[in-house]
Amino acid sequence: MLKEEQKRTGIKLLWGTANLFSNPRFVHGAGTSCNADVFAFAAAQIKQAMEVTHELGGEGYTFWGGREGYMTLLNTDMKRELDHFAKLLHLAVAYKKQIGFKGQFYIEPKPKEPTKHQYDYDAAACLNFLREYDLLPHFKLNIETNHATLAGHTMQHELEVASAANALGSIDANTGDELLGWDTDQFPTNIYLTTYTMLAILKYGGLTTGGVNFDAKVRRESFEPVDLFYAHIGGMDAFARGLKIAAAIRKDGRLADFVKQRYASWDSGIGAKIESGKASLKEIEAYILKKGEVTPNTSGRQEFLENLINEFI
Amino acid sequence: MLKEEQKRTGIKLLWGTANLFSNPRFVHGAGTSCNADVFAFAAAQIKQAMEVTHELGGEGYTFWGGREGYMTLLNTDMKRELDHFAKLLHLAVAYKKQIGFKGQFYIEPKPKEPTKHQYDYDAAACLNFLREYDLLPHFKLNIETNHATLAGHTMQHELEVASAANALGSIDANTGDELLGWDTDQFPTNIYLTTYTMLAILKYGGLTTGGVNFDAKVRRESFEPVDLFYAHIGGMDAFARGLKIAAAIRKDGRLADFVKQRYASWDSGIGAKIESGKASLKEIEAYILKKGEVTPNTSGRQEFLENLINEFI
Amino acid sequence: MLKEEQKRTGIKLLWGTANLFSNPRFVHGAGTSCNADVFAFAAAQIKQAMEVTHELGGEGYTFWGGREGYMTLLNTDMKRELDHFAKLLHLAVAYKKQIGFKGQFYIEPKPKEPTKHQYDYDAAACLNFLREYDLLPHFKLNIETNHATLAGHTMQHELEVASAANALGSIDANTGDELLGWDTDQFPTNIYLTTYTMLAILKYGGLTTGGVNFDAKVRRESFEPVDLFYAHIGGMDAFARGLKIAAAIRKDGRLADFVKQRYASWDSGIGAKIESGKASLKEIEAYILKKGEVTPNTSGRQEFLENLINEFI
Amino acid sequence: MLKEEQKRTGIKLLWGTANLFSNPRFVHGAGTSCNADVFAFAAAQIKQAMEVTHELGGEGYTFWGGREGYMTLLNTDMKRELDHFAKLLHLAVAYKKQIGFKGQFYIEPKPKEPTKHQYDYDAAACLNFLREYDLLPHFKLNIETNHATLAGHTMQHELEVASAANALGSIDANTGDELLGWDTDQFPTNIYLTTYTMLAILKYGGLTTGGVNFDAKVRRESFEPVDLFYAHIGGMDAFARGLKIAAAIRKDGRLADFVKQRYASWDSGIGAKIESGKASLKEIEAYILKKGEVTPNTSGRQEFLENLINEFI
Repeated sequence: MLKEEQKRTGIKLLWGTANLFSNPRFVHGAGTSCNADVFAFAAAQIKQAMEVTHELGGEGYTFWGGREGYMTLLNTDMKRELDHFAKLLHLAVAYKKQIGFKGQFYIEPKPKEPTKHQYDYDAAACLNFLREYDLLPHFKLNIETNHATLAGHTMQHELEVASAANALGSIDANTGDELLGWDTDQFPTNIYLTTYTMLAILKYGGLTTGGVNFDAKVRRESFEPVDLFYAHIGGMDAFARGLKIAAAIRKDGRLADFVKQRYASWDSGIGAKIESGKASLKEIEAYILKKGEVTPNTSGRQEFLENLINEFI
Repeated sequence: MLKEEQKRTGIKLLWGTANLFSNPRFVHGAGTSCNADVFAFAAAQIKQAMEVTHELGGEGYTFWGGREGYMTLLNTDMKRELDHFAKLLHLAVAYKKQIGFKGQFYIEPKPKEPTKHQYDYDAAACLNFLREYDLLPHFKLNIETNHATLAGHTMQHELEVASAANALGSIDANTGDELLGWDTDQFPTNIYLTTYTMLAILKYGGLTTGGVNFDAKVRRESFEPVDLFYAHIGGMDAFARGLKIAAAIRKDGRLADFVKQRYASWDSGIGAKIESGKASLKEIEAYILKKGEVTPNTSGRQEFLENLINEFI
Repeated sequence: MLKEEQKRTGIKLLWGTANLFSNPRFVHGAGTSCNADVFAFAAAQIKQAMEVTHELGGEGYTFWGGREGYMTLLNTDMKRELDHFAKLLHLAVAYKKQIGFKGQFYIEPKPKEPTKHQYDYDAAACLNFLREYDLLPHFKLNIETNHATLAGHTMQHELEVASAANALGSIDANTGDELLGWDTDQFPTNIYLTTYTMLAILKYGGLTTGGVNFDAKVRRESFEPVDLFYAHIGGMDAFARGLKIAAAIRKDGRLADFVKQRYASWDSGIGAKIESGKASLKEIEAYILKKGEVTPNTSGRQEFLENLINEFI
Repeated sequence: MLKEEQKRTGIKLLWGTANLFSNPRFVHGAGTSCNADVFAFAAAQIKQAMEVTHELGGEGYTFWGGREGYMTLLNTDMKRELDHFAKLLHLAVAYKKQIGFKGQFYIEPKPKEPTKHQYDYDAAACLNFLREYDLLPHFKLNIETNHATLAGHTMQHELEVASAANALGSIDANTGDELLGWDTDQFPTNIYLTTYTMLAILKYGGLTTGGVNFDAKVRRESFEPVDLFYAHIGGMDAFARGLKIAAAIRKDGRLADFVKQRYASWDSGIGAKIESGKASLKEIEAYILKKGEVTPNTSGRQEFLENLINEFI
């Protein structure tokens, strides 16, 4: 039925996923459950969801660790649970190859809630896990604003961390409230946020496989149908404005030039030598002993740069 | 002079380090400075501090990223800074070999302060960095309670993450105030904290290279010499009690047995097959289709386990 | 039926309340709803709940502001909402007199969740509201540990603030997780927490009207009946130990003596004169000009006092 | 000398204050010190600072409770300290009358740092204190953005709380970083913040006695003189834009109309009767029993209102 509707409307599938957290069987996790049968159940669900996604021409598949974490370390064998989770992802990688599914795999950082600690805490924790278990070639990250701030980071930070590892895959654009400690999943309306998000995405050449997804909901108090309209339009407009502003900042060039110039000492002389790996510790010491004291001659110019951004808001 | 004093007193050196954050030259970082000369200055300091540590028979050397991070992403090339930091550590690794220094290298997770973001945010971020740059074989982590909680984690969590990667090296035992958002560096007096810390350390066979270090200070209001006495005695007593309690809990055995039993389904049958990598996604699906619905038959028993700990407090 | 059961078992009613937050009609609040009819509905519920409480011999009545707050200030007339809430409480005070109900009225501080901001944020906010609207003579506070920490305070702090205003009424003993930003409502098992709670309660002569109430739930993962047993026993034991420890600390006397001695300069001389209101600013100036520089001669001894508490844990 | 400079330049004095926190004598507080002589010293400083302020034609005087709080409740008699602090303020009120100083008195909410808890925690805590000690007629609040967020509130919230009590006096416009837990005192550049601030100020008729003060500093990394220029210009521009946007929103009228309309049920019928105090609980019950179930017929429209604000950004 979904396939027919896709044909009729021309709408394509961004990515598929399996819900491995709502059913009570997943109370102790899915891939990280202490119960091997629960793991097996989750694995079977993933297999079928991957097949459906493949059939519908999905461009990706997301593993969302909704309950992959712990409530208390007292009852938890963290290492064993992480081994199992990696095993599950490797099984999916193997099956993907088997059925010829070419879509991108994603995992999504989230620090907590409903668990006390989710193993996919933030981008760095996800990357560490993927590297440890040789999964990084097969996965990219799906970054969510609200999860970023719950982990103590800005969205921009998480995008940079993912991009620096060549692992930025997709975005959940729902935002949170920095003064609240739970996942509010609000529609994004802050122009600074959308500008910084688009600056990061454009800087790394855009999202090549994923998209910008509203995993958001209207407030509980916004219970009329028209609120869905206001929410989606508002969110899309905010991102459209962010994109235009980011493009204008990039065209202007001053921001990127400032950053490039700030590291100019690395482009030649001792800097270039160090970067290229041609200077030993001994040579570097000799260089600096000859040169003497070093003073940082330039300010970080944070206030100037914040004003520059405001020129474009 | 230090060497003579060591000879006279028999006191040994746990680890050496270089201060790469107090001098204004490090205002933009040391190994991650935008200024290549500042990097060179830091490298030279490290070289000399390593030589001194080696000369004094130090059992380790700690790289503390006091200003390795950023104040604003607007002026920061995060990837280039991290490349430089990795370069600095590789230079140290090479020099260590050269001079025959056998001590353990440490880095210490810290999420923020004075910077908005420290690259060594938490244990997972450090491990991710060490893995990315092939530095993990050469480094272990020095975990600090106060930094753990500032990053949103319990000390116990950070110890588990480090230990699971075989990278727990040493401990800064100073604690913080979970309701305050800065590094208070208080002496540890909470028996739960010291018990959980010792449980984690004993579980992984103890600290093999490092130690338990008070990187703590008395409160500003505790300005009399006797306060130093109360603080150190109190901290040591707290750790001594934590060690005794942890040892008693381990001797009792119920806690470890509970955790082992909780994962029993992984020790045979489908669990063992999955763990050993002998089950494909297809076989797992067949198994669970035959078995049918899975219900998690056992509670997580958090309340029981918390009571069990209280038996020993 | 309840009355008959009370007679049969001898169990008495601590306090009654009305649920003014679960039904969708209260989506914008009850006493603070923008809809006057919703206020009227809530008022009628309160009237009937008070009658039932009176009939059952209840010793108090609690107004829990489950949704009395706002989701966004953009749509909120805070002053008008607070006026309405005060009106509701005054109506209840008048009706209480009318029906001869002698029980104590309580309100319960809570900072947020489900709303972005609850008007009963913390003890100070509640007291400010009660004072502004001349309600303080009629109300005491029901303090909850979890709400205290969500507002950035220790439980001990909230108990002190309430007690200093002679408004400590009752306690919800459920605790939270200081690293999580939502209301976890866990059973209390931390002996430090129960000790500090009991120290505060004993210091002010005990709870005269209320009690210690477990508004707690077992963890979602603790779904077996026996978990309820472990949770309640563990919580009661923790409070029993806290009470014994607090009593021992009071019998020992050193803690109270230390505090008394710390303020000794206020018991005579210029201190006593200032406290009694007999010194003008001019006289105080003359005193200090004659005396000259003042140095705080005593440390705050925080480390000593923390050790002292540990002697009794 | 200051007076001559004032004459020469025409610059007037907004307010005066005394520094009662930097000198080590104030380690345990000033008005709340455990040492009566320290209180006397502080009182004398205040007397002289008031005289100077009066002499220079100051329009106000600010009491900043830089260390009026506690580091640990273990050594603190909170009630006695608050009594002393109130005494100090009453002494100042009396002396103000004596010397004929007509300026406005201010206190400034701040939740913590350097202390664990400052007594002037937030606007509500300050108002509660002022009400308890009959000081409210003599004081207004000086609200700081950074202190608002450290206390878990938005700036807009604190402005509303102060204004609702007719106690909004002045503003410290320095902002913080919502992801950091200490006082960063940054210059304000966020247009949303300045818009919301100006909306609140205009709504209550503007600041009648105080002003908008930059108690801000450039970042430590912004150490060149020109950074001071960028910072001040950026902050002023941000407030100018916020003022223009707020004025446009007010002229447009939709926001205020929406809020007014939302409470329309209180302007007539049962709502008006309740507001005017003419309805008893019994009558209200009769009304609602006749009316039956109430459904909240209107959404809170948060998304619509956020979009509306964005129209003007």
